[in-house]
Amino acid sequence: MNRILLTGASGGLGTLLRKEIAPHCNTLRLTNRHDMGEAADNEEIVLCDLADADAVMDLTRDVDMVIHMGGVGRENTFEAILQSNYVGFYNLYEGCRKNGVKRVVWGSSNHAIGFYPRTQRIDASVTPRPDSNYGISKVYGEAMAQYYWDKFGVESVSIRIGSCFPKPADRRMLTTWLSYPDFVHLTECCLAAPRVEHTIVYGVSDNDSQLWDNHMAAHLGYRPKDNAEIYREEVEAKTEPYDRDDLTIAAHGGGFAAAGHFED
Amino acid sequence: MNRILLTGASGGLGTLLRKEIAPHCNTLRLTNRHDMGEAADNEEIVLCDLADADAVMDLTRDVDMVIHMGGVGRENTFEAILQSNYVGFYNLYEGCRKNGVKRVVWGSSNHAIGFYPRTQRIDASVTPRPDSNYGISKVYGEAMAQYYWDKFGVESVSIRIGSCFPKPADRRMLTTWLSYPDFVHLTECCLAAPRVEHTIVYGVSDNDSQLWDNHMAAHLGYRPKDNAEIYREEVEAKTEPYDRDDLTIAAHGGGFAAAGHFED
Amino acid sequence: MNRILLTGASGGLGTLLRKEIAPHCNTLRLTNRHDMGEAADNEEIVLCDLADADAVMDLTRDVDMVIHMGGVGRENTFEAILQSNYVGFYNLYEGCRKNGVKRVVWGSSNHAIGFYPRTQRIDASVTPRPDSNYGISKVYGEAMAQYYWDKFGVESVSIRIGSCFPKPADRRMLTTWLSYPDFVHLTECCLAAPRVEHTIVYGVSDNDSQLWDNHMAAHLGYRPKDNAEIYREEVEAKTEPYDRDDLTIAAHGGGFAAAGHFED
Amino acid sequence: MNRILLTGASGGLGTLLRKEIAPHCNTLRLTNRHDMGEAADNEEIVLCDLADADAVMDLTRDVDMVIHMGGVGRENTFEAILQSNYVGFYNLYEGCRKNGVKRVVWGSSNHAIGFYPRTQRIDASVTPRPDSNYGISKVYGEAMAQYYWDKFGVESVSIRIGSCFPKPADRRMLTTWLSYPDFVHLTECCLAAPRVEHTIVYGVSDNDSQLWDNHMAAHLGYRPKDNAEIYREEVEAKTEPYDRDDLTIAAHGGGFAAAGHFED
Amino acid sequence: MNRILLTGASGGLGTLLRKEIAPHCNTLRLTNRHDMGEAADNEEIVLCDLADADAVMDLTRDVDMVIHMGGVGRENTFEAILQSNYVGFYNLYEGCRKNGVKRVVWGSSNHAIGFYPRTQRIDASVTPRPDSNYGISKVYGEAMAQYYWDKFGVESVSIRIGSCFPKPADRRMLTTWLSYPDFVHLTECCLAAPRVEHTIVYGVSDNDSQLWDNHMAAHLGYRPKDNAEIYREEVEAKTEPYDRDDLTIAAHGGGFAAAGHFED
Amino acid sequence: MNRILLTGASGGLGTLLRKEIAPHCNTLRLTNRHDMGEAADNEEIVLCDLADADAVMDLTRDVDMVIHMGGVGRENTFEAILQSNYVGFYNLYEGCRKNGVKRVVWGSSNHAIGFYPRTQRIDASVTPRPDSNYGISKVYGEAMAQYYWDKFGVESVSIRIGSCFPKPADRRMLTTWLSYPDFVHLTECCLAAPRVEHTIVYGVSDNDSQLWDNHMAAHLGYRPKDNAEIYREEVEAKTEPYDRDDLTIAAHGGGFAAAGHFED
Repeated sequence: MNRILLTGASGGLGTLLRKEIAPHCNTLRLTNRHDMGEAADNEEIVLCDLADADAVMDLTRDVDMVIHMGGVGRENTFEAILQSNYVGFYNLYEGCRKNGVKRVVWGSSNHAIGFYPRTQRIDASVTPRPDSNYGISKVYGEAMAQYYWDKFGVESVSIRIGSCFPKPADRRMLTTWLSYPDFVHLTECCLAAPRVEHTIVYGVSDNDSQLWDNHMAAHLGYRPKDNAEIYREEVEAKTEPYDRDDLTIAAHGGGFAAAGHFED
Repeated sequence: MNRILLTGASGGLGTLLRKEIAPHCNTLRLTNRHDMGEAADNEEIVLCDLADADAVMDLTRDVDMVIHMGGVGRENTFEAILQSNYVGFYNLYEGCRKNGVKRVVWGSSNHAIGFYPRTQRIDASVTPRPDSNYGISKVYGEAMAQYYWDKFGVESVSIRIGSCFPKPADRRMLTTWLSYPDFVHLTECCLAAPRVEHTIVYGVSDNDSQLWDNHMAAHLGYRPKDNAEIYREEVEAKTEPYDRDDLTIAAHGGGFAAAGHFED
Repeated sequence: MNRILLTGASGGLGTLLRKEIAPHCNTLRLTNRHDMGEAADNEEIVLCDLADADAVMDLTRDVDMVIHMGGVGRENTFEAILQSNYVGFYNLYEGCRKNGVKRVVWGSSNHAIGFYPRTQRIDASVTPRPDSNYGISKVYGEAMAQYYWDKFGVESVSIRIGSCFPKPADRRMLTTWLSYPDFVHLTECCLAAPRVEHTIVYGVSDNDSQLWDNHMAAHLGYRPKDNAEIYREEVEAKTEPYDRDDLTIAAHGGGFAAAGHFED
Repeated sequence: MNRILLTGASGGLGTLLRKEIAPHCNTLRLTNRHDMGEAADNEEIVLCDLADADAVMDLTRDVDMVIHMGGVGRENTFEAILQSNYVGFYNLYEGCRKNGVKRVVWGSSNHAIGFYPRTQRIDASVTPRPDSNYGISKVYGEAMAQYYWDKFGVESVSIRIGSCFPKPADRRMLTTWLSYPDFVHLTECCLAAPRVEHTIVYGVSDNDSQLWDNHMAAHLGYRPKDNAEIYREEVEAKTEPYDRDDLTIAAHGGGFAAAGHFED
Repeated sequence: MNRILLTGASGGLGTLLRKEIAPHCNTLRLTNRHDMGEAADNEEIVLCDLADADAVMDLTRDVDMVIHMGGVGRENTFEAILQSNYVGFYNLYEGCRKNGVKRVVWGSSNHAIGFYPRTQRIDASVTPRPDSNYGISKVYGEAMAQYYWDKFGVESVSIRIGSCFPKPADRRMLTTWLSYPDFVHLTECCLAAPRVEHTIVYGVSDNDSQLWDNHMAAHLGYRPKDNAEIYREEVEAKTEPYDRDDLTIAAHGGGFAAAGHFED
Repeated sequence: MNRILLTGASGGLGTLLRKEIAPHCNTLRLTNRHDMGEAADNEEIVLCDLADADAVMDLTRDVDMVIHMGGVGRENTFEAILQSNYVGFYNLYEGCRKNGVKRVVWGSSNHAIGFYPRTQRIDASVTPRPDSNYGISKVYGEAMAQYYWDKFGVESVSIRIGSCFPKPADRRMLTTWLSYPDFVHLTECCLAAPRVEHTIVYGVSDNDSQLWDNHMAAHLGYRPKDNAEIYREEVEAKTEPYDRDDLTIAAHGGGFAAAGHFED
C-alpha cells in the first residue's frame, strides 16, 4: 500500500496505531486538529478540522485506505457530536468517494448496541440499540458506511470497539476488554483482508465472558489472543460488585446506558 | 386523548391526516413552517421551525401523542437534511421527553432499507441499508426513537412508508403502494395500540407482490384492505417495463437506490 | 372412529363439544366428576375422578381418541392443581398408553407462554414462560405429551387455548379470542389430521391483532373464520383502556401474568 | 416479448399452457419429441429430442424466454431419467446461454424435497431431500439453474409443482393440489416479474392444509385463488383414510416417498 | 455473600460442592434428609424433608443464594418423583420467594431434552423433549424457575448436567462428560455472575464431540477446561460399540431414552 | 470392522488414506481404474470402472463401509463428469444398497457451494450454489446420499473438502486449507461415529480465516489441529494479492467460480 491516512492520530488509539501501522505502507498521513509533534521518516502530518469539507477533500487525496479514529470519542452534547461525528464523518466519506479511496476502517462502538441486555449474546445482525447521543452517531456512521459501499463501492470496516485499555479497569471490562495487541492485530486484519464490502466487527479480546459473536466477520481472519480473565482477581480486589439491576452491568453499553441524558 | 400534535401538517400526508385524526382527540395541534389557513373548531395552529429548540419545547407542551410527518420528505442536500431531519428531529424528541409526551408516531421510510434486493422479502429485524442521504436520516431517526424508549420510556412507532399516493403511479408501486385508507387505518392503529415500545412497521397495502413482512408489528393490529393489483393493467398500459438490472426495480428503494449522489 | 372419550364433559368447552363431536364417532364416552344428566343415544356416561389411577385405566379402555378438557381450568392452589393437572394427567396418559389409545387432543393454554411480551409475536417453538401455577401445569402437560409420543407413539395435540367465549368480553380478547365455531373446527381438525405426532397449536380466531403464529401446525389444516375486530366498538364502549405498563395487556397471559401468587 | 419456447408442449401441463401463454408473445415455439398437430397462427412447431445437443442449440435460437415442461415427468429408470433430465437439461441450458435466452421457467417438483415430514412446513431455503430418481434429477436441475444464474446471468424460476390436476384426486392432494388456473397464473407471474435471478417457488393453491411457504418468492407476486378444501367431502367419500405411518401421507412427497426403488 | 444453602448435601455432587463452595460464603448451610456428620467451622447442618413446606420455609430463611442438588436424581416411580421434584421443588421456591433469596442454582438435567437426536446440536432455546418421568420433572422445574423470575424476581440458573463423574465411564460419556473441576467452576460462575435472570446452561466439559451450545449462557463466563477425548482409548478398550439405532447413543438422553417406562 | 472399500485409491487423497486407514479394518479393499502396485498384507486390489454397474456390484460385496475418493476430481467436460460422477456414483450406491453396506464416506467438495460470497460464513444448511460442472455433480451426489439414507438406511458422510495439500499453496488456501493430518483424523471420525445418518461436513483445518461452520456435524467429534496461518508469511511472499472483485477470492469456490465454462 502506498499511503494510509490516520485520523485522530493523537488520541489514545491513534497514538497506538501510529507506531504499529507505519510498516504497512510507504507513507502514513496523520491528521488531528492539534499539533502532533515531528513527523517521522515515512509520516506526513496534516492539521485539519473534519468539519471543514474542503480541507477534508484535500486530506483524502492520494490515499489508499483510511483509518478513522477521529471524532468525539465519548458522550457529549448533541451539538458537539453533530459537528464532529455527523458533519465531519460525511465530509470524510465524500472525500473518500471523490478521491477514490478504497477502504475506510473506523472506530464505531459497542454503544451503537449498548441497550441490549447482557443476558443476550449478539452478533452483527442485530438492529441498533444505542445508549447515548454518542451511540446514535455510531449508528449513523455505520449506515453511512453501508450506503457508500452499496452505492459507490467504497469499502468499510466498522469496528464496534469494546473497552480498549492496557488492562481491564473495572468488572464490566472483564467482558468487554480489547487488549492493545488484539486491537492492533484486528486493525491489520481490516487492512489486509482482500474483500470486506461493509463489515461490522466487534473489537473484543478472547475474554471468558465476552458477549459478541463475530461469525459475520469471519473473512477478516481476526483471532484474538488475550483474555481479561487473568486480571479477574486483581480487578475484583479493588472494585465493588454491581447490583443486579444496575445498567452498568445489565446492559452491553455499561455506564453509557446507566447514565442520564448528557445535557441534563 | 386530549391533545395530539401533528407536524408537517400542510404536506401531502399531513393534510390527509388533518381531516382523519381530528375525531381521535379533543384538540389537534397542527404545525408547519408556513401558513396552514384557518384553524377548525378543535384545531390549534402553531407556526414553528423544528430546528428551533426553544420553539419545539413550547410546541410539545401539554401534548399526549405526536404524529410527526414533518421534515425533509425526499432526497436533498446533506445540509438541508441535517437541519431538518437531524437537528429538528432531536429537538422534537427532547421536547417530548421533557414534556412527558407518551408516544411519537412518525414517518420513517422504506429508504432506510432501500438497498435490499427485491428478491429478498424483509421484516423489521434487518439491519439498515439506506439508499440516500434521506434514507440515512431515517436510520438515524429510528435509532433515536429506540434510544428514547430504552432510556426514557417515550414510545414510538416508526412507519417505514412505501409509496403513499391516491393510486400506484408506476410499476414499482404495484409492490410498494400504500393506499390513503390503509395509511389512515395504520396511523389509527399506531395511536390506539395499548403498548408499542419502539415498533417499526412497514406502511404498505395488501399488494400481491408486496415485500415487507410486518409480523414484528402484529400487536398494532394493522390489517390493510387495499391491493395495488387492481391497477396493474392501467399502470402497465402507460409505463415501460424495467430492465432487469435497473435498481429502480431491483432494489427495495427504487429510484432512490438507482440515483447518483444528490449533490453531484 | 368407534369411540371418543371426552373428559371435562360438563365444563364450558366440554358441553360445547358434547354436541358437536358426537357425529364424528359411533360412541361418545363422557366423563366428569359430577352428574352429567341423561346419556343421549350414542353417548356413554362415566363418573370418574382422574386422580384415581384404576378408574382412569377403565375409563380409557376401548377408546380410539381422547378429547381432554378436564382438570382445573384456571389459577388455583398448588395442591388443587397438583391432584388434577399433574396426577390426573399422568393417570390419563398411562391409561392411554396401556389401552392403546391413538391420540389425545387436550386443552393446554396460552398461560404456558403467558409471560412473553405482547410486542413479540410467537410460534410453537418458543420455550415456556408460564404465568401461574396453572400455566406451569400446562408446561408439564405438554412435556408429558411430547414424552408419550417420543417413547410410546401416543399422539397428542396440545391446544394452547386463547379466550374461548361467545364473544370477546374485554379489550385483551380482541387479540386472544377463539370463537366457538373456530374452536369446534379446530378440534375436528385435530381429530381428522392423518398424522400429528405431538403438535402444539394456538387456539385463536383470525383476529386482526392476534399474536400467535401457527405455521408449525400447518398439517392440521386449521383455518379460522372469525375475527374479534367486529366487536371492537362494542368492547371499547364498555371497557376502559389499559395502562401501557399493565401486564394485563403487556403480556400474552393477561390477568394471569398481572396477578400476584394465588396463595398469598 | 417476441418469442417464447415451450417444451413438453404435448404433455398435460404443456397442452394447458399452449392455450394460455400464446397471448403473452408474438410467437410461441412449441417442441416435443412427437407430433403436436397443426401450428396455430402465432405458433411454431419444432420436433426435437432434448438429448440432441445440436438440435437444442437450434431450438433455443431467437428465443426470449423458455418454459420447460419437457423431460421425464415421473419416476422411471435411472437410465431413462439420465438422458432426459440430465443430458437434455444440460443441453437446454447450454443452448440458452449461448443464444442469450433471458429466462427459463421450468417444472421442478415437490419430489426434490419429498422426504421432509408432513409435520414440518418448509420454505425454499431447506436443503434437498429427494424421494426418487426423479426427485434427484430435480435437485440437479435446480443446482444447474442456480449455476447458470450465478456464472452466466441466465435467470430461472424453478417451480416445485405440487399436484396439478383438474381437481384433487386423493386425500393427499387436499394439501398439495395446484389448480389449473393457479398454475397458469403462476406461470404468468414467472414470465412477467421484472427480476427473478434464480427463484424457487412452490406450485400450490391456497389450500387450508398446504405446507409450503413461498415468502422467498414474494417478488413473483403469485397469489393463488383456489382452495382444495371445497373438494374435501367429495374426496373423503371415495377414498380411505391413510394410516398414520404411511409415507404416502407422512412425507411431503407422498407415494414417491412410500414406493420402493423403481428398478427393483 | 453471607449464607449459601446447599441441598442434597450428602449426594455425590453435594459432597463435592460442600468442600469447594465453603470459601465463597461466611456460612454454608447444608441440608439433606439424613445425617451428614459433623458441621465444619463455617457450616450449619439442618435435616429437612423438602416435601415439608413449613420446614423448607425455615430452611431458606436468611439465605442469600441456594444451590439445590437435592431431590430424586434418576428415573423412579411417578409417586417418588412427585413428592420430591414437584412438591419439594415448589416448597423450595416458595421459601425463596418469601424469604427474599436472590438466586437459585440447581441441577436440572440433559434428560429434559433427552429425546433430541444426537445428530442435532442444540442450545437452550429448544423446546423440551424429556426422556423419562425424571426428565419431565426437570422441565417442570425449569418452567417454575422461569416463572419465579418473571413474576417475583427470584433469579435461577438451571444447569442441565450431562454426566458428572471422575472420568467418562462409557462411550456416550465421551460426548456428555462433565469433569468435577469443570462442574465446580461452572457452579462458581453461576454464583458470581452479576445478573442471570433465569439462565439455562448445559453442564458439560470441552469434549471433542459435545453437542450442547452454551451461547445463551455466555454471560456466565463458563469456559470448561477438560476434554473427555483423552479417555477415548481407555473407554473404547473396555466397552462395546453401540448399534447405530440404539437410543443409548442415538438420543441425547442415552439410556434414559432407551429404557421402557419405569413402572412397567 | 471387517472390510473397508477405498475407491480412487491411487489418487492423491486415496494414496494418503491407503496408508492411514489400513489399521482400522481387517481388510482394505482398494480400487481404481488403473494399476495400484502390489497389495500389502491386509489389502485387496480390484481394478474397476465405476461406470460398469455389474463390476461395482461385485466390488461392494462383503464390505462394511466405503470410502469413496474416486470419480473426476476437478472441472472437466460434462460428458466426462457424467460417466464418472453421475453414472458411477449411482452404481456405487446401488451396490451399497443391495450388498448391505452400512456407510459411505465420500469426497464431496466446497465447489457444491462455491458461489457463496466470502463475506458470508456458511454451515451445512445452506442451499447449493455450485460453481462448475464438477460442483453440480457434487450437489447431485449429496442429494443421492440423502436419498439412500431416507429411503434405504444407507448412511453417508459427504465431506465438502476445502484445499487438501501438504501446505497452503496460495492466499485463498489460508482460508480453505485442510492439512493431511486433519483430513485423516476427519476420515477416522466419519468411520467411527456411532450414527451419522447423512451428514455433511466441511473438510477444513482450524485456519484463522476459515469460513465454514461445522456445528451440524458436531456428532462426528472432528476437531482440527492445524492452522494455515503459520504459512501466511511464506505464502504472501511468493504470491500477489487478489483484486477485491476477483471471484478467486470473493467467492468460496475460488478459481472454479472465477473460471468460464469448461467447454468454451
